[in-house]
Amino acid sequence: MVSETPKITVDAVTILNGKVVLIRRKNPPYQGMFALPGGFVEIGETTENAVLRELNEETGLSAEIVKLLGVYSDPNRDPRGHTISVCYLLIGHGIPTADTDAKEIGIFDITDIPELAFDHNKIINQSREDIYGVLSKM
Amino acid sequence: MVSETPKITVDAVTILNGKVVLIRRKNPPYQGMFALPGGFVEIGETTENAVLRELNEETGLSAEIVKLLGVYSDPNRDPRGHTISVCYLLIGHGIPTADTDAKEIGIFDITDIPELAFDHNKIINQSREDIYGVLSKM
Repeated sequence: MVSETPKITVDAVTILNGKVVLIRRKNPPYQGMFALPGGFVEIGETTENAVLRELNEETGLSAEIVKLLGVYSDPNRDPRGHTISVCYLLIGHGIPTADTDAKEIGIFDITDIPELAFDHNKIINQSREDIYGVLSKM
Repeated sequence: MVSETPKITVDAVTILNGKVVLIRRKNPPYQGMFALPGGFVEIGETTENAVLRELNEETGLSAEIVKLLGVYSDPNRDPRGHTISVCYLLIGHGIPTADTDAKEIGIFDITDIPELAFDHNKIINQSREDIYGVLSKM
């Protein structure tokens, strides 16, 4: 086995009542900016379980996975070091409640997404066709 | 940053002259069995670059990426430890030449894939629609 590979994370593009769920980051990097809910995959869990767990921990929402959106692996996407994010599109259920990991939850119209942390604007922009596909069925 | 996440790998489903490129594994686990070309992602490279590098190192082929096929993250998919594989569909170019990492290269018809190492039969089976899509345009 190799000694080290990039760290692996998951990010959730979550549609809740026709809008996109974001969290405002409590900690650096990008402190105070909105971002997709997500975080590191733990050893022993699948990426699907990880994205549902992270969404629930950060927002209190349950969700179902619609599809894999993409894998984002630019070595410079996280200033802390090389992380590779597996991104999923989800439909959320429940009432969002911020926990200690997130300062604030934001619910945004897809036409009104703010400037986001990391490459999360790129992730949402490249997912617009899939997001509109979900919205069109609601 | 977390101290450790699962290790991240890439695997290549490569179509070369209408057939699928496999390598026979020289080392354990699954020593002697055929498998998809692939390997660990290095810190500082994208998953796209990693899959092209691994394919070239193991088979001598160059390639173009057609699409992301999926992310396979079952914790038990590699007996050495938890690895998460990002799988791509590629169209290969050139003449395959095994290097030291691979004992032998096998070129198989999609209807005649042998029993493979890891979860690679599952990866190919779940990619059949995309593989046939590429084959139909050749």
